[in-house]
Amino acid sequence: MIRVGIVGASGLAGGELIRLVSQHPELELTFLGGDSSAGRRPAELHPGLRLDLGLTVEPVTADRVAEKCDVVFLATPAPVSARLAAELADRVPCVTDLSGAFRIRTPELHRRWYAKAERATELADRFVYGVPELVGDQLVDAALISVPGCYATAITLGLAPLTLGLGLHLRTVVVDGKSGSSGGGLQLRVPDLHPLRNGAIAPYAPTGHRHAAEVGDFLRRSKPGSVGSLAMSAYGVSHVRGLLASSYVYTDDPVDQRTLQRAYFRFYKEHPFVRVRRHDETLIPVPDPQAVLGSNYCDVTAMHDPDGGRIVVLAALDNLVKGAAGQAVQAVNKRFRLPEETGLTMQPVMPA
Amino acid sequence: MIRVGIVGASGLAGGELIRLVSQHPELELTFLGGDSSAGRRPAELHPGLRLDLGLTVEPVTADRVAEKCDVVFLATPAPVSARLAAELADRVPCVTDLSGAFRIRTPELHRRWYAKAERATELADRFVYGVPELVGDQLVDAALISVPGCYATAITLGLAPLTLGLGLHLRTVVVDGKSGSSGGGLQLRVPDLHPLRNGAIAPYAPTGHRHAAEVGDFLRRSKPGSVGSLAMSAYGVSHVRGLLASSYVYTDDPVDQRTLQRAYFRFYKEHPFVRVRRHDETLIPVPDPQAVLGSNYCDVTAMHDPDGGRIVVLAALDNLVKGAAGQAVQAVNKRFRLPEETGLTMQPVMPA
Amino acid sequence: MIRVGIVGASGLAGGELIRLVSQHPELELTFLGGDSSAGRRPAELHPGLRLDLGLTVEPVTADRVAEKCDVVFLATPAPVSARLAAELADRVPCVTDLSGAFRIRTPELHRRWYAKAERATELADRFVYGVPELVGDQLVDAALISVPGCYATAITLGLAPLTLGLGLHLRTVVVDGKSGSSGGGLQLRVPDLHPLRNGAIAPYAPTGHRHAAEVGDFLRRSKPGSVGSLAMSAYGVSHVRGLLASSYVYTDDPVDQRTLQRAYFRFYKEHPFVRVRRHDETLIPVPDPQAVLGSNYCDVTAMHDPDGGRIVVLAALDNLVKGAAGQAVQAVNKRFRLPEETGLTMQPVMPA
Amino acid sequence: MIRVGIVGASGLAGGELIRLVSQHPELELTFLGGDSSAGRRPAELHPGLRLDLGLTVEPVTADRVAEKCDVVFLATPAPVSARLAAELADRVPCVTDLSGAFRIRTPELHRRWYAKAERATELADRFVYGVPELVGDQLVDAALISVPGCYATAITLGLAPLTLGLGLHLRTVVVDGKSGSSGGGLQLRVPDLHPLRNGAIAPYAPTGHRHAAEVGDFLRRSKPGSVGSLAMSAYGVSHVRGLLASSYVYTDDPVDQRTLQRAYFRFYKEHPFVRVRRHDETLIPVPDPQAVLGSNYCDVTAMHDPDGGRIVVLAALDNLVKGAAGQAVQAVNKRFRLPEETGLTMQPVMPA
Repeated sequence: MIRVGIVGASGLAGGELIRLVSQHPELELTFLGGDSSAGRRPAELHPGLRLDLGLTVEPVTADRVAEKCDVVFLATPAPVSARLAAELADRVPCVTDLSGAFRIRTPELHRRWYAKAERATELADRFVYGVPELVGDQLVDAALISVPGCYATAITLGLAPLTLGLGLHLRTVVVDGKSGSSGGGLQLRVPDLHPLRNGAIAPYAPTGHRHAAEVGDFLRRSKPGSVGSLAMSAYGVSHVRGLLASSYVYTDDPVDQRTLQRAYFRFYKEHPFVRVRRHDETLIPVPDPQAVLGSNYCDVTAMHDPDGGRIVVLAALDNLVKGAAGQAVQAVNKRFRLPEETGLTMQPVMPA
Repeated sequence: MIRVGIVGASGLAGGELIRLVSQHPELELTFLGGDSSAGRRPAELHPGLRLDLGLTVEPVTADRVAEKCDVVFLATPAPVSARLAAELADRVPCVTDLSGAFRIRTPELHRRWYAKAERATELADRFVYGVPELVGDQLVDAALISVPGCYATAITLGLAPLTLGLGLHLRTVVVDGKSGSSGGGLQLRVPDLHPLRNGAIAPYAPTGHRHAAEVGDFLRRSKPGSVGSLAMSAYGVSHVRGLLASSYVYTDDPVDQRTLQRAYFRFYKEHPFVRVRRHDETLIPVPDPQAVLGSNYCDVTAMHDPDGGRIVVLAALDNLVKGAAGQAVQAVNKRFRLPEETGLTMQPVMPA
Repeated sequence: MIRVGIVGASGLAGGELIRLVSQHPELELTFLGGDSSAGRRPAELHPGLRLDLGLTVEPVTADRVAEKCDVVFLATPAPVSARLAAELADRVPCVTDLSGAFRIRTPELHRRWYAKAERATELADRFVYGVPELVGDQLVDAALISVPGCYATAITLGLAPLTLGLGLHLRTVVVDGKSGSSGGGLQLRVPDLHPLRNGAIAPYAPTGHRHAAEVGDFLRRSKPGSVGSLAMSAYGVSHVRGLLASSYVYTDDPVDQRTLQRAYFRFYKEHPFVRVRRHDETLIPVPDPQAVLGSNYCDVTAMHDPDGGRIVVLAALDNLVKGAAGQAVQAVNKRFRLPEETGLTMQPVMPA
Repeated sequence: MIRVGIVGASGLAGGELIRLVSQHPELELTFLGGDSSAGRRPAELHPGLRLDLGLTVEPVTADRVAEKCDVVFLATPAPVSARLAAELADRVPCVTDLSGAFRIRTPELHRRWYAKAERATELADRFVYGVPELVGDQLVDAALISVPGCYATAITLGLAPLTLGLGLHLRTVVVDGKSGSSGGGLQLRVPDLHPLRNGAIAPYAPTGHRHAAEVGDFLRRSKPGSVGSLAMSAYGVSHVRGLLASSYVYTDDPVDQRTLQRAYFRFYKEHPFVRVRRHDETLIPVPDPQAVLGSNYCDVTAMHDPDGGRIVVLAALDNLVKGAAGQAVQAVNKRFRLPEETGLTMQPVMPA
């Protein structure tokens, strides 16, 4: 059994990691870290969890984590992750960070969007970007993994078949992101209280979102010149879990519906967690987050819109699973040469 | 008192018309028409309504409508409206249609998007497009009014200050529309049942929406050459009433935030139902449909996004009020030379 | 015009009072008081409100209120109301308190449930309990009005036809209350954040609710001996506005369905805001808060359940209107001898 | 591997059975039956399911089921189940029915509540009532299993520690049930459309619910004389999955909080799927369906209410898992002498 630590046990991503690790046949939860929640049992923090996990939350020290863990997940704010990763690198076989501290590689971009998460460039350069479908074998034996953001996962999985598969140049991309309220965590803010958040379509980041910077950084690094302008607007809508990223793509390269569909099926045919949806088969024919709830799936589709002269790319995922904890576990599975699906076979809970 | 008839009493727009007319100091409800619902009292169809409105629904005949009404609202499907409008024009002083039968002026476009609503071009040409903020005095004494669709209202009110106010050429516009479930009416379809619609982000029209055709038709007619490519994708999200239209605009003309803000305030300063929201003042600083619920307001804002090289235009309204029944009453107020706000002063019900 | 002050402008009840007063033809908003929100405009606090109400919130002093107001509404916590009412009584023609400070008459009960709201018994005895349907002409010219709680309003309007109309002795009453999240106001508590409140059925007061004490106090005072044991459990459910109170009543007196129905219709036939619903007529045949949203209606019905040997009484209302601000305005209408419905004729916004 | 058939593949319970069986390590899905959905793949009917389950739905014949299955689940309406069970009994090693056809043992009660599901009394008498926590070893090797209703499961698990554990006589029990919309399945009815169901508190069975008859039948059979009057009212509230049953119990036997708490812990200490919640430990201290979503848990608690002279019993479960498919799998685990938790260890998805 691989010994697992989770730091940041009281947050939503931390709770989701506990859920997934406690169901995983090859991972054993050996350390739970948190400062504000030290001394508490997991089920006190996350009432859904099994009552008897046999651990309580402890204060976080590098010694303690190094002693107890083969892999540690950092579900902490970016500045905390930046500090902890520096302390734990090379003392724990695998450090997997779920924050934004190491997602953006380009230093200037990082400073712009994560000013409070100072980091050494040499350390940042050692991190593998943890979207397993797009980084080949880089995750095998990786010592440091940076798990992408929820939106960035959806957007890059949606666009990669265009840039990496079909080799298109995406002249202009506009992303419209729609997310449930769990994307914002459990911080106490008046607009996030139920009376004001329910029924809302809240444009919380209409003109700048750091996930867009992350996406551009990764796509351009993966294939220089593949993306021109990329802008994003993000909205909170009236449900809790799951997001849909709509990317509207303008390209000068020729494309048609049949080419698109084939390219997407081919690109993901070996990747069990990305489901390319046809438009004609089911009750819900296109990606919709309700069809992935609680699972590690990302559903994608691409449609050619000849009237609009654009490609519409839709990608849906559960922001706490494929958008956070599930993808982290998937990356760790690859890190430790386990089958990619180990512990992640739970099917979506639908309807919910 | 102006005598009012409503045809299509059992649908959501019909119910909303009954609500507004029964609260209006200068309108008197004298006729309710409907075929499937004939013989029923309004409160049986719409349980919120006052129990004792003193009318029951009747079968619809042109004679009866002509006898009872100074103005008739058609809250009927487009093919029914096309037929009834032909029968009632010139027999009733004002026919106000809430369907799509007469919204699009260009005949080819109309045939493409409303194939089942055949109409005479001469009749269509007589209709005034009923968005009172944008048609000047055309509504005064108008005999035939076509009320825009809910999305078209939001999008045109959002874009008009750019085209008509600032005179920009909008090279490329992508609209992302997010709407509650009441936009789909009460038709019996499995995906519209609560278990499948709640928690959904349902891309119901990802690559073609006739409201986009309507918007392009109107904006280009209002100012030829003002709009290049205009595409739209529409999504059902997890609430009931209200929509947000996000328009992402690319223009080659120079623009900045200050110019935008000023232009919007100036454009709507005489129009009480369009509220230009600043970004910095309130609990909910940008248009969000929860802040207009139940009211005839349309909240708009425009933001310059220098990183993305675009303008983000947001417009929120209640799809059953400013997007349907409220705008119809507002147009009729202008038609009969009443103050525009008469009977429409109800403030938003928030939170709800 | 009657000059109106509202203290507690930033809370939900305060916002709702501003909405209703600003729509009221005989009331003029002349003072807005609040300490934390002093200096702000109403639309900053409540984004739905008309932007240009022409007032900003001021700090609260007795002199200022006395100078500016014919009637002042206290939408403040009970301890604050207790203090302000003592200062303002006899200095303002009418003080209308929406808190619990003066709802319970019996001193021991008051101390048990509102320990922090100390008050003089002589002052408390002067307050009229502001449920207009049940206190006859006591509100006319009343100097001090205590508006009942949202649950208490629904429960007493539901039970009064049994005790005051039919003269039954209610041996055992169990009340199960279901309320939307707006009932809890806008306090920052983790369980009230959208991710945890949405989808919940939260038993927030399973074994003791001060509204039950208020109901028992009022019913027993109105008719001594009419009620035996009365218990209540309250739950937060997954919507924002509106509540349903279900009272399960055991009586040894004979009763049948026809007698019940007649008694309810007779009891409320002169009261336009209480709608007795038949079980057979409409799409939604029994009280459901969605059918009263935004309005001052309380919908009630009573059913005899011969199998269970009980009477089921259902009462639905909008907790912010008939359960708070609307009832307060209705009481003030009676206080100033205005028609009871003045300014309160807005019809429910449904569906929403 | 145990070969499994599921009849009624297109309904919500059928879909949930497919989800659970496809995740179960000892069960193999070998037959999917359905008449209206014959020829379709499971993922077409239930968009959350894995796309490649390798089966399509077939028409149902007894021969085909007998050939392909060691156990068949009937997720069909009661009349269909009554007919199929008669055909399949003794031809398949285990028939597990999820309908109401065999839940009520007393013939007169059955006829009253399930008039359309005619059945032979001898057949009915052979069915084991499939609530594994309350029937000891009766399920081992059982040929016929009748899975209780969702409400009946919650109510009986809530009350059994009082009657079977403490031996109390429950003089009067009033049950108030609150359920999400998935409890009503996917039938096309106007009040179940999203616009009318969202935000509702819909009293759909205020004075008679067959689940109450089922509960009384079972509890009185388990311990004659243990329950006096038992009445129930049921409400649809504004979420999709999960229910809360509140039982208000009046007894003349002495009881206190400490006795209650101990009795519940003792009663369920060997039963991993029933979690007795303390009132003081967690973010959500009492049963709330959001804390069991997607899992096979039933959370229960009992509180003594000395003021009200009653016991408040709360029980929460996921109506499609512990209230249907999960409990069916749990019963079949016991039937085939597998560990009770096999295939059912998925933890709740929370928040959702």
